[in-house]
Amino acid sequence: MAAQLTYSNSTDILSEDGILKLLAKHFPVTHPSLLLGRGDDCAVLSNKTPLAISSDLFLEDVHFRKTYFTPEETGYKALAVNISDLAACGARPLGFSLCLGLPASIDVPWLEKFITGMAELAKKYNIILAGGDLSQCEKLHICITVWGEPVVQGGFLVRGGSMPGDILFVVGRLGLARVGLQVLEEAGRNALNNWPDACAAHLRPEPQIDAGIMLARAGYNARPPALMDISDGIMRDLPRLLGLSGGLRATGQTQGGGLGAEIVLARGQLHPEVIRHALQQGLDPVHEALLGGEDYALLGSCAPDMLPALNAAIPGLTSLGVVTSGGNILCNNELLDNLNSGFDHFMRQA
Amino acid sequence: MAAQLTYSNSTDILSEDGILKLLAKHFPVTHPSLLLGRGDDCAVLSNKTPLAISSDLFLEDVHFRKTYFTPEETGYKALAVNISDLAACGARPLGFSLCLGLPASIDVPWLEKFITGMAELAKKYNIILAGGDLSQCEKLHICITVWGEPVVQGGFLVRGGSMPGDILFVVGRLGLARVGLQVLEEAGRNALNNWPDACAAHLRPEPQIDAGIMLARAGYNARPPALMDISDGIMRDLPRLLGLSGGLRATGQTQGGGLGAEIVLARGQLHPEVIRHALQQGLDPVHEALLGGEDYALLGSCAPDMLPALNAAIPGLTSLGVVTSGGNILCNNELLDNLNSGFDHFMRQA
Repeated sequence: MAAQLTYSNSTDILSEDGILKLLAKHFPVTHPSLLLGRGDDCAVLSNKTPLAISSDLFLEDVHFRKTYFTPEETGYKALAVNISDLAACGARPLGFSLCLGLPASIDVPWLEKFITGMAELAKKYNIILAGGDLSQCEKLHICITVWGEPVVQGGFLVRGGSMPGDILFVVGRLGLARVGLQVLEEAGRNALNNWPDACAAHLRPEPQIDAGIMLARAGYNARPPALMDISDGIMRDLPRLLGLSGGLRATGQTQGGGLGAEIVLARGQLHPEVIRHALQQGLDPVHEALLGGEDYALLGSCAPDMLPALNAAIPGLTSLGVVTSGGNILCNNELLDNLNSGFDHFMRQA
Repeated sequence: MAAQLTYSNSTDILSEDGILKLLAKHFPVTHPSLLLGRGDDCAVLSNKTPLAISSDLFLEDVHFRKTYFTPEETGYKALAVNISDLAACGARPLGFSLCLGLPASIDVPWLEKFITGMAELAKKYNIILAGGDLSQCEKLHICITVWGEPVVQGGFLVRGGSMPGDILFVVGRLGLARVGLQVLEEAGRNALNNWPDACAAHLRPEPQIDAGIMLARAGYNARPPALMDISDGIMRDLPRLLGLSGGLRATGQTQGGGLGAEIVLARGQLHPEVIRHALQQGLDPVHEALLGGEDYALLGSCAPDMLPALNAAIPGLTSLGVVTSGGNILCNNELLDNLNSGFDHFMRQA
């Protein structure tokens, strides 16, 4: 339906066929996981295993700004944040669908760069674009659904299942993307000069697919690690891992009742740009790292005897503390008294 | 990431947890097709068969208007248009993910009605809400990915595969939703008085799931029908069914080369409101019916000896004509001279 759109015979504008040709140029159409690819009413997945599936919005002026994201970075990150959910399940990505709402300001060169950035990441992980939808939209809105397969029989890693005495770990940097967001909001791309790693963490987050797969393999002949990706900061997501907070688990399920954690986060474990930024603002760097969302780092727990192998196999894995049987979470011996003080994408002024 | 959002302790606003509780109230969490439901980074589908999957955008002021859609109708139609793609593959719907961009103007009562309308349709077809994403957004933006299973071994119905001599058929009304859109745009919900069926076709389209499943079953021991749903009108979609137009099949595939069609669409086959509306505007009712998109009717072809059984089994199935070996499409003996004159969601003024 597009009754409010005007037909035009001009050749330098975006047509649906033109956009589809751009996609065809940059994304292959066949894949071992697909029985039927783009072009029909549905794609058909030839599932021989269970599938992990996740959908995410990536919206202009909510999740990114065109003022400081290049088109390539926009396309890259739109897919990367989705793939991160697969990493958090220890899944190997297979395919995705792409829904694109495009404003009139988007032209062919911009769109081709956007597609190039997305295709680069899809190629890296051999993920097929299986279908999607296109529409006009006032702002650039991207909605991606991504799916993947298990790497070991027995399936995927999930939240829950932590036990007292388990080691808590993270893979990736804490708080770095939050600094990147803040400095990019303040100074635009000029921020890249003084905060290169923080800006990169926000503009081009690296999904931890390899780490997720290694964690899934580690769980094949042992009690599997619990795993999630950190989207709202440790302070909000750690209770979710332990089952202390409903969070997104609005399912009525309760689990892990009575678990707690003692974590240690020393200033020396933080990225220098996180420390420098917090100190410039008169803030506690550790607190800022705990609050930091959007890092697309993995947060997990495992049995203590699994840790040495994980440490050896997974670059960037650092232990954070232990799971306890109390209901409290202590960080550096202090109680995290307000576990719900992280981001809520919906809290806003009435 | 929601750095621009303001925290608030007010209780009458939408919080993420509040929205998730509303969803939990109206949508069940378990389903035979799910190994893991809402609440983790991914849902896990227990696939024992191939899956048909489709994603669609449903955007305020592009695909619907809040001025004349009730919240229930908005939620209903957002899911219905997605399910229609499964109908076009002869699939039985299993689950969906829901990405919701919500403007500040949406309050809890509105959202609950929206969810109620969507849940009514999900319940009718026993479709599980498996996950999704929430975000603030300037307008109400809905992106749904839906998946389904085949009802017979051998899988799904697709476009292509038509042969000369095959019977072309439609299931559903042609042009009625287009009339509904036009009268609702002109008169808002007052249009319901004079154009009740046309408005209903636009506001509450019925996905043709049962018809799709019966068509898939008919193809089990015979050459399967070719099938698609009509989203851009017969004039644009019939060439796609026959493989004459790339359309969404931007895959480099070519098929059905040289096929054509001879269709007959008599005024008497059209809904009285389509005829009345066209005549009021001084237009040819048949032409309007050929142009009409968004009907969520099914368009297909089958071997002639299959037609009697289909006619008996599928209410609302009407034959439209025959597939020919010429490359032309004739309607009522006139050449459809401009096959690309249907809707293009992206054609706009430069």
